[in-house]
Formats: sequence, C-alpha cells, structure tokens
Amino acid sequence: MTAYTPLSELGEFGLIKLIKDKVELRNSSTIKGIGDDAAVIEPSEKQIVVSSDMLLEGIHFDLAFCPLKHVGYKAVAVNVSDIAAMNATPTQITVNIALGARYTVEAVEELYEGIRLACENYNVDLVGGDTTSSRTGLIISITAIGEVAKGEAVLRSGAKENDLICVTGDLGAAYLGLQILEREKQAFLANPEMQPELDEKQYIIGRQLRPEARMDVIHDLKERDIKPTSMIDVSDGLASELFHICAQSGVGATIFKDNLPADEQMLEAALEFNLDPITCILNGGEDYELLFTVALSDYDKVKNHPDISIIGKITDKSEGINLANKHGQSFPLQAQGWKHF
Amino acid sequence: MTAYTPLSELGEFGLIKLIKDKVELRNSSTIKGIGDDAAVIEPSEKQIVVSSDMLLEGIHFDLAFCPLKHVGYKAVAVNVSDIAAMNATPTQITVNIALGARYTVEAVEELYEGIRLACENYNVDLVGGDTTSSRTGLIISITAIGEVAKGEAVLRSGAKENDLICVTGDLGAAYLGLQILEREKQAFLANPEMQPELDEKQYIIGRQLRPEARMDVIHDLKERDIKPTSMIDVSDGLASELFHICAQSGVGATIFKDNLPADEQMLEAALEFNLDPITCILNGGEDYELLFTVALSDYDKVKNHPDISIIGKITDKSEGINLANKHGQSFPLQAQGWKHF
Repeated sequence: MTAYTPLSELGEFGLIKLIKDKVELRNSSTIKGIGDDAAVIEPSEKQIVVSSDMLLEGIHFDLAFCPLKHVGYKAVAVNVSDIAAMNATPTQITVNIALGARYTVEAVEELYEGIRLACENYNVDLVGGDTTSSRTGLIISITAIGEVAKGEAVLRSGAKENDLICVTGDLGAAYLGLQILEREKQAFLANPEMQPELDEKQYIIGRQLRPEARMDVIHDLKERDIKPTSMIDVSDGLASELFHICAQSGVGATIFKDNLPADEQMLEAALEFNLDPITCILNGGEDYELLFTVALSDYDKVKNHPDISIIGKITDKSEGINLANKHGQSFPLQAQGWKHF
Repeated sequence: MTAYTPLSELGEFGLIKLIKDKVELRNSSTIKGIGDDAAVIEPSEKQIVVSSDMLLEGIHFDLAFCPLKHVGYKAVAVNVSDIAAMNATPTQITVNIALGARYTVEAVEELYEGIRLACENYNVDLVGGDTTSSRTGLIISITAIGEVAKGEAVLRSGAKENDLICVTGDLGAAYLGLQILEREKQAFLANPEMQPELDEKQYIIGRQLRPEARMDVIHDLKERDIKPTSMIDVSDGLASELFHICAQSGVGATIFKDNLPADEQMLEAALEFNLDPITCILNGGEDYELLFTVALSDYDKVKNHPDISIIGKITDKSEGINLANKHGQSFPLQAQGWKHF
C-alpha cells in the first residue's frame, strides 16, 4: 500500500525544493533557472517568442479519466505547440500551479513527472514559476519561451493568394477521444463494476489525453528548406484556425473536403456517436496539429510528405472561405471553435 | 444606471479584441504583440529575465474590498517587482485570466484598466495571454519579461560578509492594511448601515490594495552607480526573504531592530490590533519593497538616501541570522512567511 503525504507536511518551500531537485537544464541560453526572483535567459542574436496558456480542472481536463502525469505533459505540449506554430524552437517554460487542499505530495510528483517528461521530449528547461493553494481544483498556467532566427518567425498574417493550405497528421481524433472518455465516465458512474473495452480506441483516446506538439514537423520543414508563409496550431478546430489565418492575412480560402486527413478509429467512433466526421475534423479541436500555407512553388517539396496533407488553396478575399466537394460544389465554411463564456 | 453586458454576448474572440484594442506598445523590443500564437521579442544584446505569478480570488485578494482595477494593477506590480529584484527593467507581460460566469464585460474592462495603468506606469507591453472560464472566481496568472545588460543581473546568492543590508521604503503597512480591511468587512457584514472611517488609514490600506514595484529605486541605484551584491523583493516578509539571501549566499546576518523602517500609521494600527509592530515589519509581507545588500565601500552612497534604510550587516554563516537591539543583545530571527498549504 502506498503512503500518501499531505502537502502541509512539506510546505511551500519544501514543494519548490522537490520540484527544483528534479529539474535538468538542457539549453545553453538558460543562465539561471528556478531559485531567484526571476530566471535569466541569454538568447544571443536570436529573437524570442513567448506564449502562455492556462488549464483548469473541470474546464480543460477531468481527473476522473485524465491521469495527472498526462495533465502535466499536455500542459507543456499545448504551450510548445504555440511556439512550434511560430516556426520557433522552445527553450524554457515557467509553470504556475494552484492546488486544492486534497492534493498530496505524491499527486504533485506525478504531475511534475509529466511536466519533466515533456521538458525532456521537447528539450525545454523549466526555469521558474509559482506554487499556491486553490479553493477548488488544480490550475496550471504555463508560459513557454522559444527562440527563432531574426526574420524566421512565421505569423498568421503571411498567407498569399494561390498559396497551398497544408495540415499535419490527422484531425478530429482528440474530440472523439473526449466523447469516448465522457461516455465511459458516465457508464462507470452508473455501474462501477463495468470494465470499459477501450483497446480499439487507444489511438483516439491518446490524442485527447496526451497530444504532442509537432516540433518534428518544424525541424523537418527546415531540413527540406520550406518556410511556411503563415502558420497556426489547431487547438480550437481547423475551421476556426483557418478563419484566423484568412482574417489576419486578408485572404479567402477553399478547402477540399476529400483531402481532409482522417484516422480510421476516428471515422468509426464518429459513426458510433452518430456524428458527421467532417464536422469533427473541421471543428473538433485539441489536435495540436499545424495548419500552414506554403507558396505554390513549394508544391514538389510537400506533395509526398507522409505526414502533411495539402487540403486547399488560398484565394482572393472576395471569394470567402469555402469547403469544396469532389463535384466542384462549394459551400461557405462555418467556424465554431470553443465557446468559453 | 449603468448597463451590464454578460461576457457570453461578447464571446472569447470578442473579449480578446476588447483587450487588444486598448493595448499600446512602448518597447522597441516588442516585435509582435497580441494576436498570434506567440509574441515575438528582440532583446538584442541583452539578457532577459522571466518571472511568473498567479493570483486567485479568495486566496490572494477579496473582491469584497479590493476593486478589480486595483487587482489588475497589483497583479502586474507584483510581477514587475520580481523583475526589479533582478536589477532588470521590465519590458513585456503576458496575462492569463480565468473568469467565473458572474463576470460582466464591464468588470473585465475595469480589471484591464488596472493592468493598462500598470503597463503605462512601468513602461511595459502587454503582448499576449489566454482568456478562459472558471467555475469559481477570478484567476490571474502573469508572466513578466525584463531585460538586463549581461553581467548586471543581481541574484540572491551574491551577499558577502561585511556587506550592508538595506531595505527600501517602510515595512509592515500592507499587512496591517489587510487587517483593517478584513475588520471593516466583518463590521459591514454585521451591520451594512455602518460607514467605515478610513481616512486616517489611507496610507496603509493603499499599501495593501495597490502596492508599487520599486523600479524608481532600481533606476536610482543605477544613477548613483550602486550595484547591489544580492537582492530580493519583500513579498513573503522581511525575515523570510533574508533567510533566502543568507541560504543562497552561504552567509549569516544581523538585523538592527532600531533601524527597521516603520510608518506612523502602521505603528498606530499595530497598537490598535494589539500586534507587535516588529513582528509586523519582519513577517507582514506584501510590501513589495526591495531587500538588498551592498559592499561596505558603498556606505557613503546609500547612507543619506531618503528612501533606503541600512538595517543590518552580513556576517559569517556560523553566526546565524539574528535580530540585535540597541543594548547589543542578539536573538535568533524566526522566518514565518506565508503557509499556502
């Protein structure tokens, strides 16, 4: 039987020490990490990019089915994903956490094990943050810092008419993974004896619980000498992100329905839940893939990439944002995204 | 009568636009602010410092007596204070907020008015962040970025034997301001007709509700060519911060009780609450003054500064951390700080 230690036994400074002792620094730009009023970073000739996201228990994750280690990993990954979407390399993060009274030292260790693992995988240094108590559940607020050579940052505003619209991986799976987890939670609450059969859903559940930032694609694009003209990560849903790119670039877009990348498990789950798979792909969100545009002249460089789908083209603004089917019919695209309020 | 607009009418993107439209950029290092996956910053030859803090309603502030504008101002000021404590100049912040369902657009505008005012006063650019919903109250997580010339950052670890221990302003007032506000809240709850008489307490209440980061002192030290050997800001309390400096510098310290800076209103309030004023000064916290050490050779430069008190000296580690009275008697100092868990 595992012994559990209440946080009060450790105290705030004990907790900070516990976190600090497990931190390894990997980046030469990290001059001073945890343990002072602020971290010190030396980006030398580079520009730095900064992004920040907050995840709340009960809003962004449900501890009924999301292990704390995955919560920690995901909190880092979604921030790294924003850095990736700038065509930058993540270097440091700060982590602020608020913990409810029911949290034990072991729970916090599990959370930070996920954070540590993500730092290792993305080669990022945890350099600071804040720990405090919460009257409700767990709150994690992460700020990620990355570096990029001057002129190499890719904004949302650079898409030009005739550019190709590309997306990495497949879409909609994270949303359907969440539907399955929610259903299993309800089934478990109704009958705690029931054992869920989730083997055939592992991929889509994994997409929800432990998404990855596509730093692999960022490195790969660099190797292939492709610089996207615009880029954004898919957190709210493909349609919503495309609207951001079009609005900020002052362009329109046509997406080809048949080119949208879908995973087999996602399609089966959509059928099971009686959901339109195209809607899941367009509006599902939380896939953390990269949506980007490249110049038409880069077509040969991207066309055979196993992990990149060419899903459409940038048009003149006056044409609007449309979804086209194989019969050449075109319909205006709707962006749902997430409504927080 | 003021009309109130529910946040749901505005939506997340409407809220982001509302925030973005009021932002002014002041620093040439801010290349790209709000509106992309990450902000882009170009610190040129400088090092950057990064600090992050989270404030929760019901834990760090009480909206019963703390206006939202002050909450916004304070959230920025406490982060800027950490940047100041590194001997750095703040340049950018990111702001993550989570809002409960009862918040109106007008309330969010008031909060951001405080943030905007602090950005103006400290010459800081709001460059990004995240807005989300909360099942409970307001949560604000801010990351502040600053710049400092290479080699000029002041850490907690540089104090040397015989250094002078200095502190800015006066201490203990923020803590007593909080006691008064808590008492008036209870009195109001017991009898809503009662009008509090707070005119004579304005200074100490202001110290609690709207603290300032001592960037003025940082600029002043630079002008006088004083570089502290170690520095920290007083958030948890003087004693607790002194313990950090001594632990990280591997030294001891003696504080002279009679040199501790106290404000008249604070002393009166301590009497009123039957609290030992020295305990309030040593452990009160939230004053956001700067505690720093300077070489003995800088004595002439600091001795007549109107806003700096020389409160002690650094000793060998073996002597421990002590409080000395005018009769030469010395007692080991206790650090209480804040217990979050």
